[in-house]
Amino acid sequence: MRELPLQEIRRLVGEALREDIRSGDATTASVVPAGNRSCAHMVTRETMVVSGMAFAIAAFQSLDPDVVFRDVVPDGARLMAGTSLMQVTGSSRALLTAERTALNFVQRLSGVATATAAFVDAIAGTPARVLDTRKTTPGWRALEKYAVACGGGVNHRHGLDDLILIKDNHLAALHGASPNPVAAAIARARAHFPYLKIEVEADTLEQVSQALAGGADIILLDNMSPAQLAAAVRLCAGRAITEASGGVRLETVRSIADTGVDFISVGAITHSVRAIDIGLDFDPTA
Amino acid sequence: MRELPLQEIRRLVGEALREDIRSGDATTASVVPAGNRSCAHMVTRETMVVSGMAFAIAAFQSLDPDVVFRDVVPDGARLMAGTSLMQVTGSSRALLTAERTALNFVQRLSGVATATAAFVDAIAGTPARVLDTRKTTPGWRALEKYAVACGGGVNHRHGLDDLILIKDNHLAALHGASPNPVAAAIARARAHFPYLKIEVEADTLEQVSQALAGGADIILLDNMSPAQLAAAVRLCAGRAITEASGGVRLETVRSIADTGVDFISVGAITHSVRAIDIGLDFDPTA
Amino acid sequence: MRELPLQEIRRLVGEALREDIRSGDATTASVVPAGNRSCAHMVTRETMVVSGMAFAIAAFQSLDPDVVFRDVVPDGARLMAGTSLMQVTGSSRALLTAERTALNFVQRLSGVATATAAFVDAIAGTPARVLDTRKTTPGWRALEKYAVACGGGVNHRHGLDDLILIKDNHLAALHGASPNPVAAAIARARAHFPYLKIEVEADTLEQVSQALAGGADIILLDNMSPAQLAAAVRLCAGRAITEASGGVRLETVRSIADTGVDFISVGAITHSVRAIDIGLDFDPTA
Amino acid sequence: MRELPLQEIRRLVGEALREDIRSGDATTASVVPAGNRSCAHMVTRETMVVSGMAFAIAAFQSLDPDVVFRDVVPDGARLMAGTSLMQVTGSSRALLTAERTALNFVQRLSGVATATAAFVDAIAGTPARVLDTRKTTPGWRALEKYAVACGGGVNHRHGLDDLILIKDNHLAALHGASPNPVAAAIARARAHFPYLKIEVEADTLEQVSQALAGGADIILLDNMSPAQLAAAVRLCAGRAITEASGGVRLETVRSIADTGVDFISVGAITHSVRAIDIGLDFDPTA
Amino acid sequence: MRELPLQEIRRLVGEALREDIRSGDATTASVVPAGNRSCAHMVTRETMVVSGMAFAIAAFQSLDPDVVFRDVVPDGARLMAGTSLMQVTGSSRALLTAERTALNFVQRLSGVATATAAFVDAIAGTPARVLDTRKTTPGWRALEKYAVACGGGVNHRHGLDDLILIKDNHLAALHGASPNPVAAAIARARAHFPYLKIEVEADTLEQVSQALAGGADIILLDNMSPAQLAAAVRLCAGRAITEASGGVRLETVRSIADTGVDFISVGAITHSVRAIDIGLDFDPTA
Amino acid sequence: MRELPLQEIRRLVGEALREDIRSGDATTASVVPAGNRSCAHMVTRETMVVSGMAFAIAAFQSLDPDVVFRDVVPDGARLMAGTSLMQVTGSSRALLTAERTALNFVQRLSGVATATAAFVDAIAGTPARVLDTRKTTPGWRALEKYAVACGGGVNHRHGLDDLILIKDNHLAALHGASPNPVAAAIARARAHFPYLKIEVEADTLEQVSQALAGGADIILLDNMSPAQLAAAVRLCAGRAITEASGGVRLETVRSIADTGVDFISVGAITHSVRAIDIGLDFDPTA
Repeated sequence: MRELPLQEIRRLVGEALREDIRSGDATTASVVPAGNRSCAHMVTRETMVVSGMAFAIAAFQSLDPDVVFRDVVPDGARLMAGTSLMQVTGSSRALLTAERTALNFVQRLSGVATATAAFVDAIAGTPARVLDTRKTTPGWRALEKYAVACGGGVNHRHGLDDLILIKDNHLAALHGASPNPVAAAIARARAHFPYLKIEVEADTLEQVSQALAGGADIILLDNMSPAQLAAAVRLCAGRAITEASGGVRLETVRSIADTGVDFISVGAITHSVRAIDIGLDFDPTA
Repeated sequence: MRELPLQEIRRLVGEALREDIRSGDATTASVVPAGNRSCAHMVTRETMVVSGMAFAIAAFQSLDPDVVFRDVVPDGARLMAGTSLMQVTGSSRALLTAERTALNFVQRLSGVATATAAFVDAIAGTPARVLDTRKTTPGWRALEKYAVACGGGVNHRHGLDDLILIKDNHLAALHGASPNPVAAAIARARAHFPYLKIEVEADTLEQVSQALAGGADIILLDNMSPAQLAAAVRLCAGRAITEASGGVRLETVRSIADTGVDFISVGAITHSVRAIDIGLDFDPTA
Repeated sequence: MRELPLQEIRRLVGEALREDIRSGDATTASVVPAGNRSCAHMVTRETMVVSGMAFAIAAFQSLDPDVVFRDVVPDGARLMAGTSLMQVTGSSRALLTAERTALNFVQRLSGVATATAAFVDAIAGTPARVLDTRKTTPGWRALEKYAVACGGGVNHRHGLDDLILIKDNHLAALHGASPNPVAAAIARARAHFPYLKIEVEADTLEQVSQALAGGADIILLDNMSPAQLAAAVRLCAGRAITEASGGVRLETVRSIADTGVDFISVGAITHSVRAIDIGLDFDPTA
Repeated sequence: MRELPLQEIRRLVGEALREDIRSGDATTASVVPAGNRSCAHMVTRETMVVSGMAFAIAAFQSLDPDVVFRDVVPDGARLMAGTSLMQVTGSSRALLTAERTALNFVQRLSGVATATAAFVDAIAGTPARVLDTRKTTPGWRALEKYAVACGGGVNHRHGLDDLILIKDNHLAALHGASPNPVAAAIARARAHFPYLKIEVEADTLEQVSQALAGGADIILLDNMSPAQLAAAVRLCAGRAITEASGGVRLETVRSIADTGVDFISVGAITHSVRAIDIGLDFDPTA
Repeated sequence: MRELPLQEIRRLVGEALREDIRSGDATTASVVPAGNRSCAHMVTRETMVVSGMAFAIAAFQSLDPDVVFRDVVPDGARLMAGTSLMQVTGSSRALLTAERTALNFVQRLSGVATATAAFVDAIAGTPARVLDTRKTTPGWRALEKYAVACGGGVNHRHGLDDLILIKDNHLAALHGASPNPVAAAIARARAHFPYLKIEVEADTLEQVSQALAGGADIILLDNMSPAQLAAAVRLCAGRAITEASGGVRLETVRSIADTGVDFISVGAITHSVRAIDIGLDFDPTA
Repeated sequence: MRELPLQEIRRLVGEALREDIRSGDATTASVVPAGNRSCAHMVTRETMVVSGMAFAIAAFQSLDPDVVFRDVVPDGARLMAGTSLMQVTGSSRALLTAERTALNFVQRLSGVATATAAFVDAIAGTPARVLDTRKTTPGWRALEKYAVACGGGVNHRHGLDDLILIKDNHLAALHGASPNPVAAAIARARAHFPYLKIEVEADTLEQVSQALAGGADIILLDNMSPAQLAAAVRLCAGRAITEASGGVRLETVRSIADTGVDFISVGAITHSVRAIDIGLDFDPTA
């Protein structure tokens, strides 16, 4: 799991705080005395997998460099409802002003990690692994892919330059040139980018055969039924990595994994995330 | 509905393209000839409310300044499954490379608008209106609040400086000073920020009374039952705007609206969004 | 008084130093040995109210992290001519290179604070308070509004989104539609932005009446004589906050305050500021 | 007169608009219909020298690319009170939202140009010329130096790397090393930076002699009386450029110029500027 | 060959112009009248392969939007000494001010392309291809890799995330754990990054065998003699791509290519580039 | 020698690391355990002059704040092949990931310093000094000019605003106006920029005479033979600084210096640099 560099975390948190604070936290500045100190616990209201604690820490620290954290759970941890993610003690103003930004990061990233873990759990015991996609929030790709890894998933490509992926639309844009356009496309891609793996989208077994013939490293089996998937896996016979894709849901993922595919890519774990319900509970006596 | 400035849209889209393209679209560069042109339709696979078309347009335009758009639906439109959002014609490479970025913006923002519209529809006929919150994706607040407006919602504050909102945590941070801390806090806030409205969170009718006595402009009725809400509305009797908040769901929002509250704030319309399933269908004969 | 975040102060000071130093301080690099250390006092040559010390501190620190400050006066302090604002000890090169940037910030911000304080003093004993405007130096709004607060003034809106302010030009742009355009405008503004206060510009008592009828929260009494102002205040009778505006000068502000208005906005305290004469006196024996 | 590059003007104007508009112009968005068009004149209320028209133009253009300008006066023009600087026609919303930003630039830069021109006029007929200093608003140096040129002044150095200027504080930082520290400092500076001119500050005629002996190109005559200045000019006898400096006021500048000095530097034309009173008058019938 | 996006070219050229122009081109502003127009040819003084014309074009255009270009040679073209790369006609000031920046880009990028082409030519007729490395100028990687492609070379990885490359230093950092550390490292890399190819550095035939046994996709044959290389190629027998590396010079590259390796990586084509001697010749009669 | 500010070094190194690392160092993350520590020496494989150590230090530090450096050689030092530039101890992952970026800076900057020193050595004993030019890598001017100083060279102007340099192309752009265009150009330049030195390019002795007559401070003797240079130096007779320029090579520089010119400018020391061969040798037992 590649950690995000601290410098980048601070930059993103700084921008998020600027977006929220703008010219100043009017409520806190007028209501809460500057010298007051508070202690609070970040507590989850539901079962979850943690991701993004470094963002919450950076948010509080950037408003109070002397804030103290205790019992910080590590990213990737699985927590029960009611568990504390950390205790934070520092300037009351800093805690109140940074609260929403800190929670917005952790709630969303933990939502990605928790959703991923649900899919990972659903296929436990099979050789298949859960993959993410490029269906991420613009500006958040590195963060969301990190959260996928926290949840036990594997990262698909990070952008358009670290994998060749030949899809239907690419072939459509060729305007029906050659007899076996897939093989021709693979050959051209390999000649230009010999240091990248090549994945080819296939909707039918015939396309799987073409991709295999062309020497694809990975075959994206798109929107196939479990029966088709199983046939495709048999057809590949280890000559290419197999990836199932297309409308994968928690209810269907197990049956897909049972077909023997190597990977199952799930867009929903990044594009349709439910934030985890996490609160910052101030200790009234602190 | 305040539109996002074009300059800002282009900046965000430019960053999103950079995040995705990185050193170049290896697949397109090697597989698709530079001179090819394509025509495609952006088509929704489900019922939706549109938001973010300007982002998709900017994405395609920034890779092909001569791209042509036809039949672009306006933001706020309600579409049936199978409807085209627009037709786009231009360089095949530009269309293929910008596709994912264009869709990521529209899918997410339309998801926010569609979720908002569902709540708006659910309370149609009541005087209540749907509000958003500050539970937005860091870096995306302006976009998500714009999408809420596309869906028929009203924007709550944009940050910490355009409204006073005194919450439980602020009072907790005061460490039990005065006999009526709410009134004291309101007085201090008004003295410092006479040009801002003041909202006060209340969990009980007694707190509602205190807020009214202090002269609050708006009262946030947090986690109250419909019965409590109705009592609070009667207690306010028009002396303050009333806002219901706390775990509002599509199944419960109507019963809340029926209590007579002015506004209902819903975090889920920005923090737990399901992306709309939209595809870019290339015309194979174009 | 909302303090500017340290991160933002450092960013602005960093840019200012880059603007001044460019490829390097040629004089200091060639004339002053690298190891020399100096001690200097920042001294005011005239009576003043202090603002911006954090900027001066950041300027010296960013060139010599080990610089030591003593006896730093707090922002808001009132000083007599000849008083030291602080003593600074550190690398001679750092002190010499940062000197002009440090002084440029403090001289200008203290100029704003001192001008504000003059207006505040002139109306002492009346209930009126001094307000700033949006007539600020582009890029410097947050700084200048902070300095206004240091001088005892109150901040009007920070931008175009934290208050509705309906002016003559807005009504002119409506091209004479409705019979009571003010009331119609207020109604539309309230419907769109229920969480913002609404201020309306009035040049005559009749317009004051229209604004009151429309339910304005604040009425901007523009370019009225003291007699007109007093009449307007009586007309409002506490139903709206009153703000006097237009060519307010130090000689006239007291007569305005005596009319009973709540606020008096003064553009000159930010748009026409005389820098305070402050020097950095090096101790020759140090 | 070096013009500021258009790209830089647009960048600065973009930042200024962002600072003012923030999440949107609430008043205009709710009160003024999107389709309305207006015509307005930018009119000065007082005698002035123009500077910064390109900034005003960029402000309106960035909100309405199709805005039309007529009769734009050139920078450097001298106008009587009541004169129009330009006519602008376009979207009412764009004109209203950009108005304050456009005026803030022109009012301040014209203030610099007008103040400069007053000093230039005061010494007309003498060979002396008016110089600016580094006492500029951080972030605004290029703009303010451009405005000085619009007013007929000459630009002193732009930063710390385009001229050697040895001041008292540099010598103080040497801690009394050599017998003739000025000559030693000049020699070191020339050896390191042979392509830069060297200026030396002198408070006495003896220091002038030392600077001449050391071969200074320019001598800064600091805080000297007219009699001292005249003596210094005679002493220099054309061997070095002479620059008078220190508390120069409009009332005293002529007597300084009459001493025969080549240049007179005036900090006040940038650090203590009175904004010109300029308004944007909407045509009610347009 | 992936083209650099125009937006990125303009950004880089804008920064380069700012770096050179700073507060303005003093010579041109004072010596050359604003209205003058000139025509000039960009001419090479030596044989070369062209790269970077879009940067030169952007440099002139950003100072004069109406500049006209004629007979622009395409990137990748091979030119004889004395050939014109393009003719440019426009504002004299713009041409003079942008000249150095335009040339700095083209001279350097064409230097990379020309050096690459020399290596490509030297191995013509063999199946081997020339590769670049990560030994690029910080900030210039995308540009230099583009120039390598202009010269006929192939791009190795663009950064640390688009290829696994296990080197000696990685194994050294393992502190001698397992019996076959290469195979263990390959296995771990494949498990974490199944969508990336894996390259392993080998200094000996034994290490080649280990890498093959571990399933490496590519083997980096470092600092081997032609005889060792030939043996390694035979050992691989097509099971892995072979890449020769280490101090490759123009005199030795042919003997390396003759060993049958697939790729030869050459650091010198980016880290030790001789700029092409190109001038901008003004037409004196224009 | 003006040192680059630490803040700027960190910014450049941060961008360079981002350019190389992108979404993460896949090899290190998967192969090397997070807790491992390593010790390595940065060792030169050839004779060199050091420049840029602060960049290497910043690279390692930004990935491991606790990294320890020992025996760091100072910039400007001359080293024999096989010498260590520093020892670095810290997180294995940080060392491996930052290695290439650290080396890329030091190899290139030391290449500039070493090339400069070769020219400096070649003219040792003559009064002439080596100058750089504006033929630098865009974005790297400050760095490369710093490296020139490390090698014993002198910096020519940093951009277009710190020296007037009138070249042939400026005169060509005047379109043959006046009888002595050189003198006219000098006069105009001096009137506009009295605080800058003026250099004039001369290709013939007649042009030297014209430049002297016009009062040029420096004369650029372009592409002259040693005999012409000597004649030009005699003609100048100390009235102007003399600078030889044009295709200066290591083999010819001594004969140029022997003509008595003050400065010799060499483009090759920045535009055609050979990187020094430096490696990072990991201690296998550490």
